[in-house]
Amino acid sequence: MLKSPMIVLNVKTYTEATGMNALIIARLMEKISKETGVSMAIAVQASDITSCVKEVSIPIYAQHIDPIKPGSNTGWTLPEAVKAAGASGTLINHSEHRLKLADIDTCISRARDIGLDTLVCTNNVATSKAVSTFSPMMIAIEPPELIGGDISVTTADPDIVRNTVKAVRTINKTVKILCGAGVKNGKDVATAMELGAEGVLLASGVVKAKDKEAVLRDLISEF
Amino acid sequence: MLKSPMIVLNVKTYTEATGMNALIIARLMEKISKETGVSMAIAVQASDITSCVKEVSIPIYAQHIDPIKPGSNTGWTLPEAVKAAGASGTLINHSEHRLKLADIDTCISRARDIGLDTLVCTNNVATSKAVSTFSPMMIAIEPPELIGGDISVTTADPDIVRNTVKAVRTINKTVKILCGAGVKNGKDVATAMELGAEGVLLASGVVKAKDKEAVLRDLISEF
Amino acid sequence: MLKSPMIVLNVKTYTEATGMNALIIARLMEKISKETGVSMAIAVQASDITSCVKEVSIPIYAQHIDPIKPGSNTGWTLPEAVKAAGASGTLINHSEHRLKLADIDTCISRARDIGLDTLVCTNNVATSKAVSTFSPMMIAIEPPELIGGDISVTTADPDIVRNTVKAVRTINKTVKILCGAGVKNGKDVATAMELGAEGVLLASGVVKAKDKEAVLRDLISEF
Amino acid sequence: MLKSPMIVLNVKTYTEATGMNALIIARLMEKISKETGVSMAIAVQASDITSCVKEVSIPIYAQHIDPIKPGSNTGWTLPEAVKAAGASGTLINHSEHRLKLADIDTCISRARDIGLDTLVCTNNVATSKAVSTFSPMMIAIEPPELIGGDISVTTADPDIVRNTVKAVRTINKTVKILCGAGVKNGKDVATAMELGAEGVLLASGVVKAKDKEAVLRDLISEF
Repeated sequence: MLKSPMIVLNVKTYTEATGMNALIIARLMEKISKETGVSMAIAVQASDITSCVKEVSIPIYAQHIDPIKPGSNTGWTLPEAVKAAGASGTLINHSEHRLKLADIDTCISRARDIGLDTLVCTNNVATSKAVSTFSPMMIAIEPPELIGGDISVTTADPDIVRNTVKAVRTINKTVKILCGAGVKNGKDVATAMELGAEGVLLASGVVKAKDKEAVLRDLISEF
Repeated sequence: MLKSPMIVLNVKTYTEATGMNALIIARLMEKISKETGVSMAIAVQASDITSCVKEVSIPIYAQHIDPIKPGSNTGWTLPEAVKAAGASGTLINHSEHRLKLADIDTCISRARDIGLDTLVCTNNVATSKAVSTFSPMMIAIEPPELIGGDISVTTADPDIVRNTVKAVRTINKTVKILCGAGVKNGKDVATAMELGAEGVLLASGVVKAKDKEAVLRDLISEF
Repeated sequence: MLKSPMIVLNVKTYTEATGMNALIIARLMEKISKETGVSMAIAVQASDITSCVKEVSIPIYAQHIDPIKPGSNTGWTLPEAVKAAGASGTLINHSEHRLKLADIDTCISRARDIGLDTLVCTNNVATSKAVSTFSPMMIAIEPPELIGGDISVTTADPDIVRNTVKAVRTINKTVKILCGAGVKNGKDVATAMELGAEGVLLASGVVKAKDKEAVLRDLISEF
Repeated sequence: MLKSPMIVLNVKTYTEATGMNALIIARLMEKISKETGVSMAIAVQASDITSCVKEVSIPIYAQHIDPIKPGSNTGWTLPEAVKAAGASGTLINHSEHRLKLADIDTCISRARDIGLDTLVCTNNVATSKAVSTFSPMMIAIEPPELIGGDISVTTADPDIVRNTVKAVRTINKTVKILCGAGVKNGKDVATAMELGAEGVLLASGVVKAKDKEAVLRDLISEF
């Protein structure tokens, strides 16, 4: 299991992180994680899980699972399938892949039953609090309007992080709380921790960077 | 490219065809295809493409692609990603994964642009005719109410196959036309060919069979 | 606002409750509600709101609203539009119309802002608890597998009602809790109240009944 | 039935066209249509159909129908319900409400069976051609990127109109072909007719105009 502080990288479907490129980033994170002892995980496309798992020892996450059981479900993402491919966890309800309430509940239960870590994304304080009643392993608060942008959530809206921590803790004492959207450097990560988060979820800040290693090292430079 | 007659197996998300089990079925199909010269392809879960492609020489298809371009699309299936994993084609619009009209058009175009075979599933004569205007490589007519059932479409509703062939040919002379739903044995396949189809798309008839090899051999026994 | 005990009838898109037929049922409920003093509301199709509101004084609810603001949204249900038509409340997240988590939050907020009662449907104890963090006016727990069936939730699964009340009350002391699915007669309603519910949400039990008045009168016979 | 040239106004969910405001626009269109003899129809929100139909004699359309039959469908738009409310037709597959291919087929069939005019929106030449195989009464080609914009499709991309007419006519000789997106004045409408269209579908150009009557009169000024 990831320990605080933790860096979770969602590589989405960027060309810079598809196929062999996903593996290159995963190796980089593994190297830095080993050197520094900072917990890192990478969420890759379903078709890239197997090759990353074979060569890299940091946790490989799926970006999504569907609320289904084995059976007649053509082209959907079976939790057991990403587990069989070697994933150790999964994002759920990312802002680019929102789920119905009942399906979030089902996905968390199914993931827990088969031993996948669960990181549920939320858009505001209210939905973070609601999700915390399901006791996932992690919640990542990411205001959708800041995702992919130039200003970190920790600068643009520090209160949403602070208030999410406060609201979630009235319900659930153990869920890990991350924040994300626009996170790009060590200062953003340090601020996230000061606001009460235990890590960050990020994507383009690393994936689209020319020097990915430099960005990854900078992210954890203030620990 | 597949040639007539062709057998396309959609293994869905059955436990009997997830992870290592997908590979076992793919190997079996490869063996029989080599022995007999009959074209066979297998559509596996995204997370199983890489391992099947590495070990098996028959075409490995994805079960679905999303109408997206590389970029910010968390947990969706990028056409380039399944191609990078080694898939040579994809199902589109399966009855368990229906797409919007504009998205079928986009998926076919995107697949064609990057070199993926396209097999578009349809539910009746009218939608088959509509899809044929997009010139996919293959169309598979599958009446939803017969999918997963005990009676083959070729027995339950031979006219839907015959009329699909007739209607599609008024628009498109080259698209390959398959049929599916309930197909289980050599007689079903032979009847499909007599009705004007050039192959079959099937799933549970093979995947849920105790002796998968026997079923696969029987399917092509009348050629 | 509805007061306990309350009967909320969702007439869905049944022929027996479309157009003039919706109005006939609404009038019947108004008559019985006036005679007995029991709170009753009816959720009709969007196109039937205006005519019901014009002639009937009991609360007319929409069956659904979309999480949208005025603007470019063709064919979606604007909260302000059902309000303008005269609706005084709305169902949200019915099992036949599930919403994404973030959209449930938005729908409740938007409805509250413009003065619509909110009745959010849920499928189990966990999602009821989650929804209660949003403080809607009412929650209706309805196990999907019992909806439209012959056995009332109060008989088939009394614990789901009891445990929902218990779980929701750890979070929210004021939200009204209803139950539904298979509810058909006065005994079912009485049991619901004993289990801690403050009313029932029902549909086919009334709408498909030959003698709707008799069923409605029976429903409240044990108060 | 509408006759060429025809003006179809989709008022979406704009505040300027919700409730009483929808009725005001409908009356205006009726007045101008009567004076000039030009065919006009207005597509209003489901909750506004009844009141518009009661007071106005031009065709009132729904903005959407769902591919459902009477029964258990909470909060969806039943074709029979908009018909019962008095609508004489419906938009289908608007760019803000895209449908699955099989559902477009079903909606057109269901609308035809119960006597609703069908106006199917499409996004490009290929999907227009595909839809024409279903023989709806009308097709409206609207490039999504131009909808709500300042430049009319007839100026920004005249070829898409010309080529749609050409492609559709290879399949279907009788379907009426409209165009839309950015259409705002009489010159745009006249150009649409020159390009082979038989009318226009428009929205914000009228609904958001300060002087709606002036815009409506201008639209048909070149006939």
